Amino acid sequence: MRNLVLHLSESEGRVFTAEASPNIALIKYWGKRDEKRILPYNSSLSMTFEHKTFRTVTSIAFSKKIKEDLFYLNGVRQNLSDREIMERFSILNLLRKMAGRRERAVVVSRNYFPTASGMASSASGIAALAYAANAALDLGLGRKELSRIARQGSGSACRSIFGGIVIWHRGSSPDGRDSYAEQLFDEKYWQDFISITAVVSSSAKKVSSRAGMRQTVETNPLFGARPESAEARLHDLVNAYARRDISGVAACAMADSNEMHALMMSTSPPIRYLNAASHAIMDAVESINNDAGEIIAGYTFDAGPNANIITIERHREEITRAIAPLMKKGIVKGIKVSHAGTGPVLLDSRWSMMGKKELRMLK
Amino acid sequence: MRNLVLHLSESEGRVFTAEASPNIALIKYWGKRDEKRILPYNSSLSMTFEHKTFRTVTSIAFSKKIKEDLFYLNGVRQNLSDREIMERFSILNLLRKMAGRRERAVVVSRNYFPTASGMASSASGIAALAYAANAALDLGLGRKELSRIARQGSGSACRSIFGGIVIWHRGSSPDGRDSYAEQLFDEKYWQDFISITAVVSSSAKKVSSRAGMRQTVETNPLFGARPESAEARLHDLVNAYARRDISGVAACAMADSNEMHALMMSTSPPIRYLNAASHAIMDAVESINNDAGEIIAGYTFDAGPNANIITIERHREEITRAIAPLMKKGIVKGIKVSHAGTGPVLLDSRWSMMGKKELRMLK
Repeated sequence: MRNLVLHLSESEGRVFTAEASPNIALIKYWGKRDEKRILPYNSSLSMTFEHKTFRTVTSIAFSKKIKEDLFYLNGVRQNLSDREIMERFSILNLLRKMAGRRERAVVVSRNYFPTASGMASSASGIAALAYAANAALDLGLGRKELSRIARQGSGSACRSIFGGIVIWHRGSSPDGRDSYAEQLFDEKYWQDFISITAVVSSSAKKVSSRAGMRQTVETNPLFGARPESAEARLHDLVNAYARRDISGVAACAMADSNEMHALMMSTSPPIRYLNAASHAIMDAVESINNDAGEIIAGYTFDAGPNANIITIERHREEITRAIAPLMKKGIVKGIKVSHAGTGPVLLDSRWSMMGKKELRMLK
Repeated sequence: MRNLVLHLSESEGRVFTAEASPNIALIKYWGKRDEKRILPYNSSLSMTFEHKTFRTVTSIAFSKKIKEDLFYLNGVRQNLSDREIMERFSILNLLRKMAGRRERAVVVSRNYFPTASGMASSASGIAALAYAANAALDLGLGRKELSRIARQGSGSACRSIFGGIVIWHRGSSPDGRDSYAEQLFDEKYWQDFISITAVVSSSAKKVSSRAGMRQTVETNPLFGARPESAEARLHDLVNAYARRDISGVAACAMADSNEMHALMMSTSPPIRYLNAASHAIMDAVESINNDAGEIIAGYTFDAGPNANIITIERHREEITRAIAPLMKKGIVKGIKVSHAGTGPVLLDSRWSMMGKKELRMLK
């Protein structure tokens, strides 16, 4: 008890800042067996991006001085009664409860992504928030436990708690205790492995992945075969990655991306995230592989039209060249290359996102 | 025996001509349980087009005067050692064998389809050939038996042996005896029901559906759920058609088209028949239905990018109007409206496709 009081006084009003990166799934997460606890039907696998490529930086401070939680994202105050934001922000309540604390928090977060990258920021945002709050509440939780927490904000966020190649174990326990993320390969294991993100223009209407995957589970007769198909492919992909076999990794990643988008398309009503630009990139990657006579690159698409092309350093130029005509035509708006990066890190106080206004509130 | 001789002399060298129409599947056929006998994993359902919209006219004559089978399609002599043509033409050998006849045949066939309609002609071609040959060989086979024969030339051809709404029973017998087509509703049952074929431009590389469906069966982990999903949906669609419920029919047709194309896309390597134009039509139909507040039209795509939009007469104008901007942009190259049509019919001798050259060969 004495310890807790000490910690309280130490962290009270003090700003903690963490940065984290989003991840690109190579084996996809699509479908929950438990909507409330966010428990998936199948295990998934991802590469965490390098912080220098895509990152979210989040500062948090708890203080008795403030009456309600405040959340600023990219300079704009967010409405915490908005359902989607509330669900993501709920991890703060989980952590506060674990710490036995009641103070409200100010959270200031910013995404450092290329303009209009269309990159989903919920994974990096939730990972950075969980990481910073863990420090601010002096909970001392390990990454495994933090991944369980992050999972409850947004499923795929649990994978951004680790760097390198990360598995999210589906688990089987109804309470979710065995559904957490784990690093399988650190970011140094295969330094030649890269992802080339090709940002495309989109006029697609947004279907939230939360609603979309629920509809797939409820309406798609093909979904029954998905969990075991994904598990088997994950196993194959991990083995291919272990032997640094780009053909094996790329083939699995393409097959899994196609399988997920096929399941979306055969949902009622159909969910289509891929557009003509996405298909043009798929064609380009198929041509590259046909010309090479072997699979040297693979595409993968999350719940949006942007492509991630995975390959190895040796083929980077070749792929950039093949994408160039699509950039000239405006089909691809920009590309960004990333190796596997690290998990979230705490930044020192120089990097606080808090402005004068927020700091005044805390004093 | 006397009878046979009489028939022989009657039909020897005489030209028989039949016309038949292709069909659009509302519940799709994709995947064979027996490659050689062309036995499907699931029953399928289609509407036969009106002859005046799309038809194939085929003339046939058997004669002792000719040394080898000759096949002219759209004025061009076809190579009967080409595998695909040989497989389709094989029904002639089946029929000849059943008739105990040995004479070779001259076959002249022409497709009356809008220019570059991209409409698959194998179903109408095989149906017309089977129908004309049945007469020329004086076999007197009924439509059910002819559908079994046509099936062995190309699966979906068996459905073009009937008019109206036609089911192809998958059957369960290994020898295929219970896998044949049957008319469920004649062409007069629901005269308001129409299909609007929207022809789009395509630069897609061709994957034959024969090879494509084999790859789906062999490589797609989701395929296992397809047969029962299709059977259940077929049942629902038939019930909706029976009560002339366009919402029910269109919803089933869209779901089944999406399911088939999803299975193609999740095949390794992926098979993509739909292009950006197809997706634009899907969007247009979704908008029409959203604006109407109920499903008044449905899209369905076979193994190609052309759309068939099913609806009822009352909404024909509305749909044509919604497609007009796509025609202006050149995305849709033409439309053709069809009610359900009749099965194959024999034409009188005025309509023979035979030219002077072919007739000389027979004498």
